[in-house]
Amino acid sequence: MAIAQTILTQDLADELALIDAKADKLRGEMLDLQHAAAFLPRTKIVASVDYAVTVGSDLCIVTAGARQNPGESRLNLLQRNVALFSHIIPPLAKYSPDSILLIVSNPVDVLTYVSWKMSGFPSNRVIGSGTNLDSSRFRFLIADHLDVNAQDVQAYIVGEHGDSSVALWSTISVGGVPVLSFLEKQQIAYEKETLENIHKAVVESAYEVISLKGYTSWAIGYSVANLARSLLRDQRKIHPVSVLAKGFYGIDGGDVFLSLPTQLGRGGVLGVTNIHLTDEEMERLRESAKTILEVQSQLGM
Amino acid sequence: MAIAQTILTQDLADELALIDAKADKLRGEMLDLQHAAAFLPRTKIVASVDYAVTVGSDLCIVTAGARQNPGESRLNLLQRNVALFSHIIPPLAKYSPDSILLIVSNPVDVLTYVSWKMSGFPSNRVIGSGTNLDSSRFRFLIADHLDVNAQDVQAYIVGEHGDSSVALWSTISVGGVPVLSFLEKQQIAYEKETLENIHKAVVESAYEVISLKGYTSWAIGYSVANLARSLLRDQRKIHPVSVLAKGFYGIDGGDVFLSLPTQLGRGGVLGVTNIHLTDEEMERLRESAKTILEVQSQLGM
Amino acid sequence: MAIAQTILTQDLADELALIDAKADKLRGEMLDLQHAAAFLPRTKIVASVDYAVTVGSDLCIVTAGARQNPGESRLNLLQRNVALFSHIIPPLAKYSPDSILLIVSNPVDVLTYVSWKMSGFPSNRVIGSGTNLDSSRFRFLIADHLDVNAQDVQAYIVGEHGDSSVALWSTISVGGVPVLSFLEKQQIAYEKETLENIHKAVVESAYEVISLKGYTSWAIGYSVANLARSLLRDQRKIHPVSVLAKGFYGIDGGDVFLSLPTQLGRGGVLGVTNIHLTDEEMERLRESAKTILEVQSQLGM
Amino acid sequence: MAIAQTILTQDLADELALIDAKADKLRGEMLDLQHAAAFLPRTKIVASVDYAVTVGSDLCIVTAGARQNPGESRLNLLQRNVALFSHIIPPLAKYSPDSILLIVSNPVDVLTYVSWKMSGFPSNRVIGSGTNLDSSRFRFLIADHLDVNAQDVQAYIVGEHGDSSVALWSTISVGGVPVLSFLEKQQIAYEKETLENIHKAVVESAYEVISLKGYTSWAIGYSVANLARSLLRDQRKIHPVSVLAKGFYGIDGGDVFLSLPTQLGRGGVLGVTNIHLTDEEMERLRESAKTILEVQSQLGM
Repeated sequence: MAIAQTILTQDLADELALIDAKADKLRGEMLDLQHAAAFLPRTKIVASVDYAVTVGSDLCIVTAGARQNPGESRLNLLQRNVALFSHIIPPLAKYSPDSILLIVSNPVDVLTYVSWKMSGFPSNRVIGSGTNLDSSRFRFLIADHLDVNAQDVQAYIVGEHGDSSVALWSTISVGGVPVLSFLEKQQIAYEKETLENIHKAVVESAYEVISLKGYTSWAIGYSVANLARSLLRDQRKIHPVSVLAKGFYGIDGGDVFLSLPTQLGRGGVLGVTNIHLTDEEMERLRESAKTILEVQSQLGM
Repeated sequence: MAIAQTILTQDLADELALIDAKADKLRGEMLDLQHAAAFLPRTKIVASVDYAVTVGSDLCIVTAGARQNPGESRLNLLQRNVALFSHIIPPLAKYSPDSILLIVSNPVDVLTYVSWKMSGFPSNRVIGSGTNLDSSRFRFLIADHLDVNAQDVQAYIVGEHGDSSVALWSTISVGGVPVLSFLEKQQIAYEKETLENIHKAVVESAYEVISLKGYTSWAIGYSVANLARSLLRDQRKIHPVSVLAKGFYGIDGGDVFLSLPTQLGRGGVLGVTNIHLTDEEMERLRESAKTILEVQSQLGM
Repeated sequence: MAIAQTILTQDLADELALIDAKADKLRGEMLDLQHAAAFLPRTKIVASVDYAVTVGSDLCIVTAGARQNPGESRLNLLQRNVALFSHIIPPLAKYSPDSILLIVSNPVDVLTYVSWKMSGFPSNRVIGSGTNLDSSRFRFLIADHLDVNAQDVQAYIVGEHGDSSVALWSTISVGGVPVLSFLEKQQIAYEKETLENIHKAVVESAYEVISLKGYTSWAIGYSVANLARSLLRDQRKIHPVSVLAKGFYGIDGGDVFLSLPTQLGRGGVLGVTNIHLTDEEMERLRESAKTILEVQSQLGM
Repeated sequence: MAIAQTILTQDLADELALIDAKADKLRGEMLDLQHAAAFLPRTKIVASVDYAVTVGSDLCIVTAGARQNPGESRLNLLQRNVALFSHIIPPLAKYSPDSILLIVSNPVDVLTYVSWKMSGFPSNRVIGSGTNLDSSRFRFLIADHLDVNAQDVQAYIVGEHGDSSVALWSTISVGGVPVLSFLEKQQIAYEKETLENIHKAVVESAYEVISLKGYTSWAIGYSVANLARSLLRDQRKIHPVSVLAKGFYGIDGGDVFLSLPTQLGRGGVLGVTNIHLTDEEMERLRESAKTILEVQSQLGM
């Protein structure tokens, strides 16, 4: 809902179709958005348990996901989510065969792969929100540390969304100025340790928000709306999102989705940007790919 | 939180201070907003249980309110809310003596009166969100019925926020065209009954959303952000909000806050617009005033 | 150029194609807009003397027009403009057979008729900017007089764009409140004379701006961008624009374009709003229609 | 006027005061902006030949400048502009002693110095638009070459605004990725020569636009509005603008203004970012400083 509401506030779509299994809650959310019509540019908002209302969508954003039961293994949870997706992706693909699929549900990398398989779409039209939000948190924490505007900070977290994500130290710049020289100037005693603590804080921040308020909503809402703008308005901007990574950086064991800096536009994925990675970073990316492939092999898809 | 997030998305403030009694939840919400910094213009966001962080605010928005206990009388609930406000309004007024108070908590009319008394502020700087949202729902439902843009619909609901609100039929216009002639043209068989059903739907819509999703959030968020824009950016626009109504329309039994079309700007209330009311509408407004005054007399303020 | 630049700032289009006969000036304008790319959402901007670059446009805005030579009759000027349009409209229609034509050139009502004829488009896809700007000036002057926000003022000027335009007194409202009662309240001694002076000021204001700065640009830029938003983003808002008026208000002498309150959306003209006109206003509208028809009859189309 | 209009469209100010020596043209421009009130958030627009209307401004933008007469030396032109500024800067400083001065007139670096001297303001409140626009043109041309979004390109041109500006090759990045690795990936045969040709194109682009359309307007309008946003909304973003450069990069011959990457906020200049420059770049910066100082010495200030 935070995604839908942010897309609405930012006037990114002429029509918004909401789908959920719970008809009542869904209708409540639809009405609550519609009641604000006088304060917003006109957007048609529909909601249904029936996927038919999504017909002809340009972009389908999927956030559905089962919650972990007490004592449940991660694999078991994943299998339940795959079962859930088998009721979601095929009808979306059927009603909007030319749309772009943007997967937000976790574990995002595997579920983006699953959505690619289930949809039969070409890989340039299946994208996972991946580390786009992790990168934003990273940029906020660096900006906060340096007292600059987060929009002026460039910094990527790539790879698997979650604990094993890879921060690309060499790409960090502030206002276009590589960060180390910037820091020097500001007389800040800044060391690799500090940056690593910031990366650690990023990894922990989702857990922290969940432990404090019970779930995350606003930041993922802005993050996905940001991707939606690049896709729907053909912005051709570069975002760290989960894409078919086979063939990049020596990842060659099979079809795997991982976050890499990717140029997004009306056609979906327009290209994956090559970044200079250290040997260690390459190795960690390949480790992530291997782990994900093992999980995928257990899904029997 | 929906108010805070909409103000953030719409870039209405340079600094946002969040206050809540629950430190953990509050910190979670603050972090969740901050993590989106890379997607938004820079806004400083602070949060605390201590009102000191609100010092020097231009606008204080109050949404705090106790929930009704099973079997609790409305008066008892109100008394608990008054007790709650005695811990909120005085510190806000102390730290920001020149600010505007915008009260959203329910029952909004009485609590706006209470805030006025507790703050010692002049009445032009104490405003209740009142029927601003009711009017928006009214405009949406009329627009939906006529398939026009809700921003083109002018229609006021005034008086007490809630069941006894008064719809001003004579002021309804679409694109500046009084609605009856518009309807004639569109060959729609439209009668007073239809409009009254729409008003009834407005009154019920808050209950409907609450019964469906458990609470209202998005629409009130947009509604209050809309008021914040007029106040902070000196828009001098007219909104139906709860203001000190004594002396208008023969309301003379005492100090009472009711929603009337009011011009809002940087100075708060700039003026109350005179509308031609029918005798019946006048009578209903005065009835509302009387009811509220009786409630207020029981508060012993 | 003011139209193109406002459309760009307001992010209303993914692609902008500029056409002009003067290749050099055109290229200068294109470069000057492109150089701002870093400050704006991405919009592709192309420019050419060749209409082929407009292929597949959703909306074609025509501002070309010859200037009056000293001693030249209005009819002669018009004939030169018709000749000019014969080189503009057919190629636009050929390259974008499904587009909407929005005519800004003067005399706008006759040239919109001419464009309709030359394009072979259905009348719902041929629109003149008409009195949209006159109405905005009217709203500003009333707002300025009353010290309210011009967006809160509803007021239409309809009919022929120019000296014989018709102000609809009965539709003037401020914040949805019919203006006479509003004024009463504000204790402003306001009489029909004042409003008529405001209308006179509107009619003279274009001449005034031209005499002062040599031409008009900003206001017409905002006005047409406003129409472009309603059309491209399917806003279904009501605007006073020049549309095929035959059959409305007893206008029956022939095919004539005049400004009437019109609902605009992705499909172009969605409907013409019926307004209650006084007999005098009806008569003046029909007079305008007759004058325009006489001019058209001299064009031999 | 392009600056004023862009600030208006982007809703960056509550009040706009226009000053010009030509009362008629000025009034025409004011009216032309005011007539668009119905399409914009409310902004108060005033205009006068009398500086008294600027009283209490937060930001003063100066674009006034004499044009070069045929056969006139650059020094003579500069002296005439200094004489002009002696009628502009002192009254601005008198009426708004706490404002920020943003100088756009050319030669911008010397005239920013002159404004600093004439105003008596601390140097953090006197800024020249400098190479902010040159850098935007540079970013557009690189983005166009690579088919990416110009907002994703970071690239600075610093030093003297004009022919001797210095492009900082090492800071060029696309989406945070240093440009050389990006290019490698895209299989584009790209050499230093190409980048130098792009820099050459930037330097020539202002002349090109002037030769084609007679003047520049749109891009400088967006560029300065972009600076105004950072300053008025305390964005703390980094821009290449002309600031007192003494003490940076071994520039020590005297008080000289040059463009350097500078963090801007509500307080004006918040800090100058240190960038790693090659010896050659440093040398060129110092050469520019020396040239400007020589010019300044001839002004006798």
